[in-house]
Amino acid sequence: MIRTAASALAALALTLPLAAQEAPAPNAASPGEIVAAATPQDWTRIAPDDLLVMVLAPAADGTARDVVIQLMPPPFSQGWVDNIRTLARAGWYDGISINRVQDNYVVQWGDPNHDNPEADGPAKPLPEGLRVMEEGDYVHVIRAAGPDEDNIILWHPKPDLVDSYAGSATFDKGWPIGIEIADRTKVLRRWPVHCYGMVGVGRGYSPDAGSGAELYTVIGHAPRHLDRNIALVGRVVEGIEHLSSLPRGKGALGFYEDPAKRIPIRSIRIASDLPASEQPRFEYLSTESEAFGRYAEARANRRDPFFIAPAGGADICNIPVPVRRVIPAGE
Amino acid sequence: MIRTAASALAALALTLPLAAQEAPAPNAASPGEIVAAATPQDWTRIAPDDLLVMVLAPAADGTARDVVIQLMPPPFSQGWVDNIRTLARAGWYDGISINRVQDNYVVQWGDPNHDNPEADGPAKPLPEGLRVMEEGDYVHVIRAAGPDEDNIILWHPKPDLVDSYAGSATFDKGWPIGIEIADRTKVLRRWPVHCYGMVGVGRGYSPDAGSGAELYTVIGHAPRHLDRNIALVGRVVEGIEHLSSLPRGKGALGFYEDPAKRIPIRSIRIASDLPASEQPRFEYLSTESEAFGRYAEARANRRDPFFIAPAGGADICNIPVPVRRVIPAGE
Repeated sequence: MIRTAASALAALALTLPLAAQEAPAPNAASPGEIVAAATPQDWTRIAPDDLLVMVLAPAADGTARDVVIQLMPPPFSQGWVDNIRTLARAGWYDGISINRVQDNYVVQWGDPNHDNPEADGPAKPLPEGLRVMEEGDYVHVIRAAGPDEDNIILWHPKPDLVDSYAGSATFDKGWPIGIEIADRTKVLRRWPVHCYGMVGVGRGYSPDAGSGAELYTVIGHAPRHLDRNIALVGRVVEGIEHLSSLPRGKGALGFYEDPAKRIPIRSIRIASDLPASEQPRFEYLSTESEAFGRYAEARANRRDPFFIAPAGGADICNIPVPVRRVIPAGE
Repeated sequence: MIRTAASALAALALTLPLAAQEAPAPNAASPGEIVAAATPQDWTRIAPDDLLVMVLAPAADGTARDVVIQLMPPPFSQGWVDNIRTLARAGWYDGISINRVQDNYVVQWGDPNHDNPEADGPAKPLPEGLRVMEEGDYVHVIRAAGPDEDNIILWHPKPDLVDSYAGSATFDKGWPIGIEIADRTKVLRRWPVHCYGMVGVGRGYSPDAGSGAELYTVIGHAPRHLDRNIALVGRVVEGIEHLSSLPRGKGALGFYEDPAKRIPIRSIRIASDLPASEQPRFEYLSTESEAFGRYAEARANRRDPFFIAPAGGADICNIPVPVRRVIPAGE
């Protein structure tokens, strides 16, 4: 990396020692090579009911801008996830906009007239049936032990890796999770964490906990101070570049001062509500698989040819869980 | 945050408890408020010889795009920094381009015909007088103790904070530094780290260590696995949004496949070489100041009104060193 692609490939062929070309050490594989070599059984399909397809207005040059979001599975944030499905099925998101793009922080979308003293019209009424959420669900998150907790896989690039925020961190069913551990084994609490591309629920001041009508995604260094202060509900699995490359807002907190700069959202749909032929299909590399363990270890100890000094560790947000689009056979 | 700015300010006034309004606890200040309250003595001027002004071609809508980079001070990477000054003074950078924009990773600029099998012309000859650099300077970095090491300020949001990559981390003369410590006190090695906005030197495969003609900056989650594998030479202190919001390249590693997508660089100049009236002036919040200590502590333990659950820790790249433009008196 950090040079032209073509020459990097050329250099790869030229600089690998002969011994390595003949019998490459298993550990010399790059994280990408390990993912590419994973078997079909190492991948887990994402249910179409857990995928949101957000269609933005096309870019100025006509480029289509679709963003696919995976909703978070139980046990986290399910009240907000339910609300998001209700809002999507009611068509409520259609016609709202991206109103805020703050560099190295978040892109945020919602009804620009909601809770806005400078609104040019009334706020959009919310549909019936939304659950009223409480902050306890993200502040206290999942306590104590239970059958679900027994399944936590504790994976560390090195045994004594700690997380600056949660004390420790792991992956669970495809998601990055902060965990508070006592006595080296007892899980006190665990919660999803704010890595690049994670999607959360905008809210006002406590005790407002947000409904799911206002959402944001992370487009910079992981703002982990937001963990346990906001409900995380998912992550972008395709099209984040349509959000991360938007012009930054010039107002406070990156809001667009000029309403004309807002990016219209044409629709947000649950994939399972789309015609079968239009449903995107995705799968993630199972974080409980042996392949993921090797991938994560390689992220923490890069031994592919560009690297000279493997780090010996990694933070959880620098080990992004591989997600890929499934191309149906015959298409 | 995570809502409209105007309503957030309104809510601030409404939701602070009366006691807090009458006698706000010192710790209730936000990081931004602590920085705003720092005294002039807490700020350190950046020498104009340490500032680079990179002028990109204007955006499609005519917006000027200037990026200001602070070069790294001794003891790190000074050979490359010398080369960068040589290249800037020779006008060598004028007319090169941004060739690579990889989402959640880096923006990279250089001579597109350098080391490129698909070049449409010869590579641009480098000026005389460049130092030939060796990788040992970033792999082994600064060893052992010495008068300079005695001045390291070890700052931690909590006493047992560790860094997933270096073992520990600190700030030194305004820069984020990874440190390897033995016996809790002895510094074995230390090195600058890849946080958002840091600028490094593109290189080929080892033993190539790059010259400084090819540069990149971080536009995503801190790619700390690059630490000690590439020479870091500075950081963007203004205008990163002109880089981070560029369209992502569709080729391998984010290179632009279509040469027409490259963004021309009109010039890169050392600020001290510009006419006095055009020299930008910047200062950073001294990382050795008491104000910085309080700022960093507040980043790790957010107690301003939006927050419910302070994290109790932070990673070094989530404590960006405040840098601001100085507006000369009377202008």
